[in-house]
Amino acid sequence: MRAVIIGCGETGSYLVNEYSKKGYNISVVDKDERAFDKLPHNLNGVIKVVGDATDMGVLQHSFLASADIALVVTGDDDVNIMISQIARKYFNVKNVAVMISNAEKIPIFKDIDVKVICPAEMIISQFKE
Amino acid sequence: MRAVIIGCGETGSYLVNEYSKKGYNISVVDKDERAFDKLPHNLNGVIKVVGDATDMGVLQHSFLASADIALVVTGDDDVNIMISQIARKYFNVKNVAVMISNAEKIPIFKDIDVKVICPAEMIISQFKE
Repeated sequence: MRAVIIGCGETGSYLVNEYSKKGYNISVVDKDERAFDKLPHNLNGVIKVVGDATDMGVLQHSFLASADIALVVTGDDDVNIMISQIARKYFNVKNVAVMISNAEKIPIFKDIDVKVICPAEMIISQFKE
Repeated sequence: MRAVIIGCGETGSYLVNEYSKKGYNISVVDKDERAFDKLPHNLNGVIKVVGDATDMGVLQHSFLASADIALVVTGDDDVNIMISQIARKYFNVKNVAVMISNAEKIPIFKDIDVKVICPAEMIISQFKE
């Protein structure tokens, strides 16, 4: 099983760790090589790809075509929207999740089979009257 | 009603907007003045505080003591953990939510009445077998 994780910030590095524990082969992509410093050094089967994930070549190098799961968690909503759609539609990854900060952008995924996680929406729902 | 929002990144700026629409008076704190450029220019009753929110003086200036809701959403888990606890325990804010990227840190809130939002945990729960 392969999980491809796009963005190795705090959320991405945590996900790399967790899916590694689950026994997945993992590719993790970040445009900043230093982002990988957050990962433990003893992870097996983790491929680190430095590059801009909006570049199809970078996505191909990350083995997205053979991914069972793609988790798109860069800090940029527009990048996340683009990559998650490419993962689902072009690379035909069955399980795609995307993190979106600005909830106004969620309707973009209305007819797209991608799981959308929006922390802001969840915060607001905590305090619904 | 006053909402204090700590961190004016993508999530924070969305929350400022939403709570403004709900009619709240809002204070928003960020250490980088340029973060406020993301906010619409026509928001009423929004106090922007530039400063390090781990500084008690900055929190006092943000009227945290009279907040009904405090939402702590900087990009730094450790800062978020510290400020959300101060908001709940020291300023006695009744409704506090905090965003945490690294789920391993969630147990810190075991005995603290703060709502914890963890996008990584939510992503993992989407694909639980």
